[in-house]
Amino acid sequence: MQIVYSNTHKAHFGQSELVDGAFQPSFECPERAEIILSTLRDNALGKVISPKDFGLAPIVSVHQPSYVDFIRGAWNRWTSEGNSFDMLPLVTPGRSRVNGREPTALAAQHGWFSTDMLTPITNGSWDAAYQSAQVALTAQKLVSNGDRAAYALCRPPGHHAGSAYSGGFCYLNNAAIVAEALRALGANRITILDVDYHHGNGTQDIFYERPDVQFVSLHADPSWEFPFYLGFADEKGAGPGEGYNLNYPLPRGVDWTAWSEPFEAACNAIDGYGPDFLVLSLGVDTFGGDPLSSFRLVSDDFKKIGERLKRLRRPTIFIQEGGYAVGDIGKNVFNVLSAFEG
Amino acid sequence: MQIVYSNTHKAHFGQSELVDGAFQPSFECPERAEIILSTLRDNALGKVISPKDFGLAPIVSVHQPSYVDFIRGAWNRWTSEGNSFDMLPLVTPGRSRVNGREPTALAAQHGWFSTDMLTPITNGSWDAAYQSAQVALTAQKLVSNGDRAAYALCRPPGHHAGSAYSGGFCYLNNAAIVAEALRALGANRITILDVDYHHGNGTQDIFYERPDVQFVSLHADPSWEFPFYLGFADEKGAGPGEGYNLNYPLPRGVDWTAWSEPFEAACNAIDGYGPDFLVLSLGVDTFGGDPLSSFRLVSDDFKKIGERLKRLRRPTIFIQEGGYAVGDIGKNVFNVLSAFEG
Repeated sequence: MQIVYSNTHKAHFGQSELVDGAFQPSFECPERAEIILSTLRDNALGKVISPKDFGLAPIVSVHQPSYVDFIRGAWNRWTSEGNSFDMLPLVTPGRSRVNGREPTALAAQHGWFSTDMLTPITNGSWDAAYQSAQVALTAQKLVSNGDRAAYALCRPPGHHAGSAYSGGFCYLNNAAIVAEALRALGANRITILDVDYHHGNGTQDIFYERPDVQFVSLHADPSWEFPFYLGFADEKGAGPGEGYNLNYPLPRGVDWTAWSEPFEAACNAIDGYGPDFLVLSLGVDTFGGDPLSSFRLVSDDFKKIGERLKRLRRPTIFIQEGGYAVGDIGKNVFNVLSAFEG
Repeated sequence: MQIVYSNTHKAHFGQSELVDGAFQPSFECPERAEIILSTLRDNALGKVISPKDFGLAPIVSVHQPSYVDFIRGAWNRWTSEGNSFDMLPLVTPGRSRVNGREPTALAAQHGWFSTDMLTPITNGSWDAAYQSAQVALTAQKLVSNGDRAAYALCRPPGHHAGSAYSGGFCYLNNAAIVAEALRALGANRITILDVDYHHGNGTQDIFYERPDVQFVSLHADPSWEFPFYLGFADEKGAGPGEGYNLNYPLPRGVDWTAWSEPFEAACNAIDGYGPDFLVLSLGVDTFGGDPLSSFRLVSDDFKKIGERLKRLRRPTIFIQEGGYAVGDIGKNVFNVLSAFEG
């Protein structure tokens, strides 16, 4: 399958992730994408192509325009105030009663439009997020035009970003943007299957009241793991979307035996839904060696994921999400994709 | 008038306020209270007494018990996880759709129960906040028992704390706790007048739907100043509380001439309401030399505040809120209180 990749991500590298009381460079680093790319190239998975530019329209079909304006313009406003360090939210509305009036001050907007201290806005953030969405849309176009599958080497990832908030290293929700683009092209039913270690709270939030995009996620139980506030089993969708949101929160230490059972159930639920397209939020941080994970999948297990996905027999757009074991991330991604192809 | 003070605040001193991309010791420092105390002592304002202990009941009559449990137990949980540095919220629900289920994980609770990076939980935070509330309640008791006025030298301050959130250096809302205690003793109408430079968003939030506690605040316009999300003129209360919340947001650079006009209007509104007691959220960060302020009151202006408050002729509990110009804070507080007495 073809691989869509852009170099633009390299200028986005947060230096100020707040961990254990001190700032440190983000786990979500440029090397992640570079190693995936070189591994896929070395193993000749497929041709590497550059993204086309589909503009802002498919982005604002998912994201609130004022949020997009904020992310897009924040760095210039921040530096024009004399700052040069990573921009983090310092003040938030929290769970206070607010009047619903969107703030206009830069600091107030940042707290309004974000959810954590893991997702700084840096000089290259907007360009990287924008190109990451274009990478996803280009992969979608390949599949819409008849390819059985395509791989979008997205960086930054997307599944924690909601319509109007960033979080968890994510600014624009690439999987959601692809699903919406597929709908706009006439597809009736899309499934987004999220196999990242972390719950795809942004994706769930975006489609929670919609029956046309099924969201299925296997992930660490949010009662003790990021993103904490969403991802519970009783969140099944609302209104017309009721029944189209499926969460499989899993305990610490899950290995292939424990992971594959809900994965099989998820695949059966997808078969039952019968989507026209499958969008795969592909995080490989379920890997045992991942620094942000408690799961224990081994590299060969990722082949089994690819094999099972293949049997779903759906045109599939793979969207890169998490995975922070830099030394193994390329192999793990390759194992999914090559098994799907094989 | 008598001054209520406890030494317990000294053990609470956040070292990790995030400002300009780096951690720095909090502007809300122990020296603030020590200088107020020594100035009031040097000028013989009145007897300094220690707080009595009214327990948790008056605190949980304002604050959600699970929030109080969190603030109370957080530091021990945090250090039992091997941490020793100031505890700051790293992940929040933001404005995402959440299911309303209160989180149980420490990190998730912190984001749930807080609003900013200015209000760390340190070793001494709970004890200081608890004693600060007891200081306020002891001053309230003096006035309930017949004193015309009393001064609660509260530290940490309280007016940014809501029923279930910390913020802006505040953990427990001392003014709200006093108002609620006065109501419990049979007072029908209480006014909380907040003259701090920053809007008392927590206090507003707590009483927003209630007619029995009038909240009146003069402050920097939240469209550009902390706490940003509340404090606008059109927030007038809701339901049975409609008409009992009065905000006077003011522009940058306000001096006595510009400040005294809405202050006079606020005093007239209080006369119209006719409260049994006045609770004064006394911030002196309207002072021109304050590092967190854009207002330009001079020290003599604080005498005029005290003189005007005297003419309201209400039993008055003064609750210390903000004020960060350490060299002048004592004089400015003294000027209000001595003019009220004089």
